[in-house]
Amino acid sequence: MARLFHVPLSPFCRKVRLSLAEKKIEVELVEEKYWEKSPDFLRRNPAAKVPVLRLDGRVMSESAAICEYIEETRPEPALMPKTPEARFEVRRLVSWFDDKFHHEVTSKLLYERVNKKVTGQGYPDSKNVKEGARAIKFHLDYMAWLLDQRRWLAGDQMTLADFAAAAHLSSLDYISDVDWNRSQVVKDWYAKIKSRPAFRSILADQVPGFRPPAHYADLDF
Amino acid sequence: MARLFHVPLSPFCRKVRLSLAEKKIEVELVEEKYWEKSPDFLRRNPAAKVPVLRLDGRVMSESAAICEYIEETRPEPALMPKTPEARFEVRRLVSWFDDKFHHEVTSKLLYERVNKKVTGQGYPDSKNVKEGARAIKFHLDYMAWLLDQRRWLAGDQMTLADFAAAAHLSSLDYISDVDWNRSQVVKDWYAKIKSRPAFRSILADQVPGFRPPAHYADLDF
Repeated sequence: MARLFHVPLSPFCRKVRLSLAEKKIEVELVEEKYWEKSPDFLRRNPAAKVPVLRLDGRVMSESAAICEYIEETRPEPALMPKTPEARFEVRRLVSWFDDKFHHEVTSKLLYERVNKKVTGQGYPDSKNVKEGARAIKFHLDYMAWLLDQRRWLAGDQMTLADFAAAAHLSSLDYISDVDWNRSQVVKDWYAKIKSRPAFRSILADQVPGFRPPAHYADLDF
Repeated sequence: MARLFHVPLSPFCRKVRLSLAEKKIEVELVEEKYWEKSPDFLRRNPAAKVPVLRLDGRVMSESAAICEYIEETRPEPALMPKTPEARFEVRRLVSWFDDKFHHEVTSKLLYERVNKKVTGQGYPDSKNVKEGARAIKFHLDYMAWLLDQRRWLAGDQMTLADFAAAAHLSSLDYISDVDWNRSQVVKDWYAKIKSRPAFRSILADQVPGFRPPAHYADLDF
């Protein structure tokens, strides 16, 4: 069986979990305290990051490369469109969320509030938290602009771009950092993706010391 | 004709330039002072980053997505291998350089020494410079370890992984931050990639106020 070394609130791990679940690939989840850099873990992945996926007898790191590999080896149901233009748009948005959104929002809210505490690095920096809270508004508006023109973020089918975005937003939703009232179209999109069976394991996540809001796992939030 | 909005020492722009040149796609280079956030530029790319490529009547951002698009629309000469396993390894290494190497090395050396001055943000932070100078050794050793087993970084053919790595190292070489004596196998690899016609425009780059070392453009360095 596949095995995924992960931490529950990591958006990069969640993106891989969503891909695996959507493709109905059974996986054993193993929580990995990557910041403790155990020799075993470093042997599996010199980058000392999660996710690390054991699949098809290989040990793989880097979530974008992992998701493309899963897509190429298990093409159904498709999480990538067929044309180069549409595939470009998916990859552009995956990078948008995993790079820009991560840098401007996730690292300033989730990492300040949760990762610092969990890894014993002290208290949140309120300047960062303020910047993150301001930046997420811009990103939600950008998503609303995309979703005004398209059924899903990258086009008319659900793709890895939706999983990348939902992975970040679900982690932030766990700590009540998403204002779902800002845009109805974004809220509708999230309700749609949240109700997929692939999302169940993510809604069941529990992080000791952090209790999610009541709406976190509620499909009719 | 294709048009690339770029800055000369950006490794992300250089990776795209190398891909375009290797595929013999003619491109007009336009220097874009992205940090000035001109309204025209923001319209082309809301992420306010370079590279931005105009190609096939589209305006594209995000270097990884751009390179995959070029590869899918102009498959020859191939910069991606055929099997999912080999393609995974290329994408893993592209992420390694554009994410980890960039964070640990490029942002601490190039951005401190050059970008800060060019964008009027003051002097290099010596703590960052020291960290970057220490981290690059680890990365050169990792490359040497890969190249002991393979002709090119991701396998036996030259791929986007080599271009990603060469893009970062060439930018750092411009400011004399690469110790080529650390590993003969890495030096040989760089000499091989540097001598390709695709590399010529990069070796001709000039940044006002920063003069490259004599060996920068020397193919027999």
